[in-house]
Amino acid sequence: MRTVTQAGPLRAAIKGWRNRGLTVGFVPTMGYLHEGHLSLIRRSRAEHDRTVVSIFVNPTQFGPREDLSTYPRDLDRDLALLTRQKTDLLYLPDAGDVYPEGHSTSVSVRGVTESLCGPSRPGHFDGVALVVLKLLNRIAPDTLYLGLKDYQQYRTLERMVRDLDVPVRVVGCPTVREKDGLAMSSRNIRLDAAQRRQAPALRLALLRGRDLVRSGVLSAARLSSEMSRAFRRSAPGGRVEYFEAVGAERLERVVRLSPEEPVCLAGAVRFGRTRLIDNEIVPARRR
Amino acid sequence: MRTVTQAGPLRAAIKGWRNRGLTVGFVPTMGYLHEGHLSLIRRSRAEHDRTVVSIFVNPTQFGPREDLSTYPRDLDRDLALLTRQKTDLLYLPDAGDVYPEGHSTSVSVRGVTESLCGPSRPGHFDGVALVVLKLLNRIAPDTLYLGLKDYQQYRTLERMVRDLDVPVRVVGCPTVREKDGLAMSSRNIRLDAAQRRQAPALRLALLRGRDLVRSGVLSAARLSSEMSRAFRRSAPGGRVEYFEAVGAERLERVVRLSPEEPVCLAGAVRFGRTRLIDNEIVPARRR
Repeated sequence: MRTVTQAGPLRAAIKGWRNRGLTVGFVPTMGYLHEGHLSLIRRSRAEHDRTVVSIFVNPTQFGPREDLSTYPRDLDRDLALLTRQKTDLLYLPDAGDVYPEGHSTSVSVRGVTESLCGPSRPGHFDGVALVVLKLLNRIAPDTLYLGLKDYQQYRTLERMVRDLDVPVRVVGCPTVREKDGLAMSSRNIRLDAAQRRQAPALRLALLRGRDLVRSGVLSAARLSSEMSRAFRRSAPGGRVEYFEAVGAERLERVVRLSPEEPVCLAGAVRFGRTRLIDNEIVPARRR
Repeated sequence: MRTVTQAGPLRAAIKGWRNRGLTVGFVPTMGYLHEGHLSLIRRSRAEHDRTVVSIFVNPTQFGPREDLSTYPRDLDRDLALLTRQKTDLLYLPDAGDVYPEGHSTSVSVRGVTESLCGPSRPGHFDGVALVVLKLLNRIAPDTLYLGLKDYQQYRTLERMVRDLDVPVRVVGCPTVREKDGLAMSSRNIRLDAAQRRQAPALRLALLRGRDLVRSGVLSAARLSSEMSRAFRRSAPGGRVEYFEAVGAERLERVVRLSPEEPVCLAGAVRFGRTRLIDNEIVPARRR
């Protein structure tokens, strides 16, 4: 696996592939890779001649009181995992190369960013949109692979790609879970043993919401309170940031969900300083 | 000359050229073409195998009280001019194709947009940045040609291209003028005979500012008031919106200009409802 840290060699490597008619898949990450990331890489490798992975803990998507400085990092382990997955190229920029002095352009996606994590992470999705747009412009892949665990991020980037006419296909890949249902996340490592035991309550609460939707409950307030209650029952050591039920495409807040559209059930909870998110999409046809 | 109105055929035509190894230059316009536009097209044709021109009166760059609906249009004349210039492809989208329902992404460039026309046209440069980014993503040209008459627009787009890593070269082309010095603009047609006679006062005021800079005047306030005074003296029928002197790269407002950096002298004036802008760049080496 080749590793590049500068935009110049990155573009040159990809241009070389393009000149040979090769296709390129791209998996952006913040490192500390887990099976979720690896599933995206495998999907890209199955569908493309070459796969580029980036590792960049993007400062513009962290709020001032968020965990940028303590975000888990283990580059040696990541390199070993990427090599084992036969990743073709790792792009490992430093922040000065991505945001040089004088950088003053921002990107904003409204609508899909206004519910769920939006209110509690102001600026977060703008930061995600900016860095992914920059990476797409540097790499120019055929396909962008994103994990559906970060569902609002997926919808935001899909919307941005469509609105800005970025010539890339966006593919969302299923959440990979631990045996007890906890969605894989780089942040799980920060849970202590007691927190880790209670963490699957997030998933259980969303499944409780799914059962209610399937049984015909379409009141967003009732779904929210039932999911919160279910979480609190099985995770006394956790705190609810939100549980919400919104339309799965536009993520718009509504009083009553449409029976003809898929529903996104999503939650964010905290165990100590560790914030976990998860979601469950309930297709309309299954109700 | 081929004309396309949809993104699909546009991309297909350009892909066909790319497959043959041809280079592409791009000139975005709002139509009602004049010699300034034609000079950009000639430059593109001299430097590229193929030249794409767009005509799109972009609604997102007009404010609610601005002249979107009365912006001058004459498509038949434009088509004749473009054919005579041997333009290869005219992209003529309609607003619904550029901004379909649900469009919710915006782009913002700070810094260079905060002086000159920025305060009096809130949202204008965001609208310009958005539409040009979309056009660049649809066309993927090698070079973007812009007129230096709209100097702040040029600096804004150059900044955006750099900040978002858009793989395109940005070229600014000299302002083309009438014999009496008035910068060519689609809006000049709206001047009545008396206004047209006084309109060169804008240029004269900027030249007065240039002479002062060359003679060592670096106070932004003094340059502003001297230019305003010069304009009012020769154009009693005009109104000053602003005359400003700023650093020519970042367009930042300063009390005292740096003797080591080029200076941008810029003005916006109104004759009746017609707004005219012009600028003069004074290189540091000539002072």
